[in-house]
Amino acid sequence: MSDILNKEILDYLYKLFTIEDDILTEMEIYGRKKDFPIIDKYSGKLLHVLTQIKNPELIVELGSGFGYSAYFFAKGLKRGRVVLIDYQEKNIEMARYFFRKGNILEKAEFRVGDALKVATEYENIDILFLDLEKVRYLEAIRSLERNLSEDALIIADNVLWHGNILSKSDRKAEKLRTFNRFMSEKYVSVIIPVGDGLLISVRNCSI
Amino acid sequence: MSDILNKEILDYLYKLFTIEDDILTEMEIYGRKKDFPIIDKYSGKLLHVLTQIKNPELIVELGSGFGYSAYFFAKGLKRGRVVLIDYQEKNIEMARYFFRKGNILEKAEFRVGDALKVATEYENIDILFLDLEKVRYLEAIRSLERNLSEDALIIADNVLWHGNILSKSDRKAEKLRTFNRFMSEKYVSVIIPVGDGLLISVRNCSI
Repeated sequence: MSDILNKEILDYLYKLFTIEDDILTEMEIYGRKKDFPIIDKYSGKLLHVLTQIKNPELIVELGSGFGYSAYFFAKGLKRGRVVLIDYQEKNIEMARYFFRKGNILEKAEFRVGDALKVATEYENIDILFLDLEKVRYLEAIRSLERNLSEDALIIADNVLWHGNILSKSDRKAEKLRTFNRFMSEKYVSVIIPVGDGLLISVRNCSI
Repeated sequence: MSDILNKEILDYLYKLFTIEDDILTEMEIYGRKKDFPIIDKYSGKLLHVLTQIKNPELIVELGSGFGYSAYFFAKGLKRGRVVLIDYQEKNIEMARYFFRKGNILEKAEFRVGDALKVATEYENIDILFLDLEKVRYLEAIRSLERNLSEDALIIADNVLWHGNILSKSDRKAEKLRTFNRFMSEKYVSVIIPVGDGLLISVRNCSI
């Protein structure tokens, strides 16, 4: 697995499968200017592809920031909507701005508040996306299980923690290891080694 | 992307997300004994997860060998079936043996012949899996497009060609580069850098 990845091949992949979109570019510039972390663009493309495979009615994001990942989801929707949740009103306002400019406002719902609390208002979530504080991932999936649809897809970003997932001294790494183990036992899961590591789990199925 | 992958983390991933299944183990031993190449086990797990996300009625495999990848597909099916095609009767016989032993015979259809020719007999293919001779990938997708369902998923193995995809002197690498470019332009595609590189493409959708 590792020996197929080198700088040249990564460049090849990023170039070949990029998404050209002015709004995404504007968001990337905004993120850099504000020093606001956003999902790796290749991971974003994967969110987009997974949305098209799944064809969901309802996507709920925990920790949307200014809407970069939600934009990939929204663009992949053939129906339904994505709910963006962030505790900062300013972030959600920016997300609304970008979605309006991208002409996809009708595909989104914008919420300000504690992501876990707000998310419990929704039922039959087809895709749940975790990108809130890493120490809260396990709490999030535990408290929201009953809000998921029967065959829901759960996606979590940063699960390889910049390559530090095995660090013994990093508290967040430890929390993420516990989360990854939980997900591997409870769902059919796999981690895609792109960006910071993207966990994909399917509910209610087993080999 | 690359700096999150090292030997330790790969071991962590393979261990955490492995599938324990006696038949799979038996198939792996058989493959080694016969020096018959099979898909990377982590890639197999990904086929399994994608099947559960997609919930297809019909999966058609081009180049099934003795059924190792088909086994991951079949185990992910909630309905429908996977069609295995291989030009060697002996391989298909072995596949039937393993599927019978795994109690999933009713989820599969076994065909001997030229994969491209046999596959044209099927319509509304929900997942098309390419694992035949690499120089035929492009011909395969071109001739089978009309047999795909509207929102079909196309998956192709070995698209990073053991890390030699950028080699200028390798004819197969060149053919695969042409195929990858075609897929990136015609479908919404992404290559997952696991195993030998797994291409995932969705039909009839665009950002």
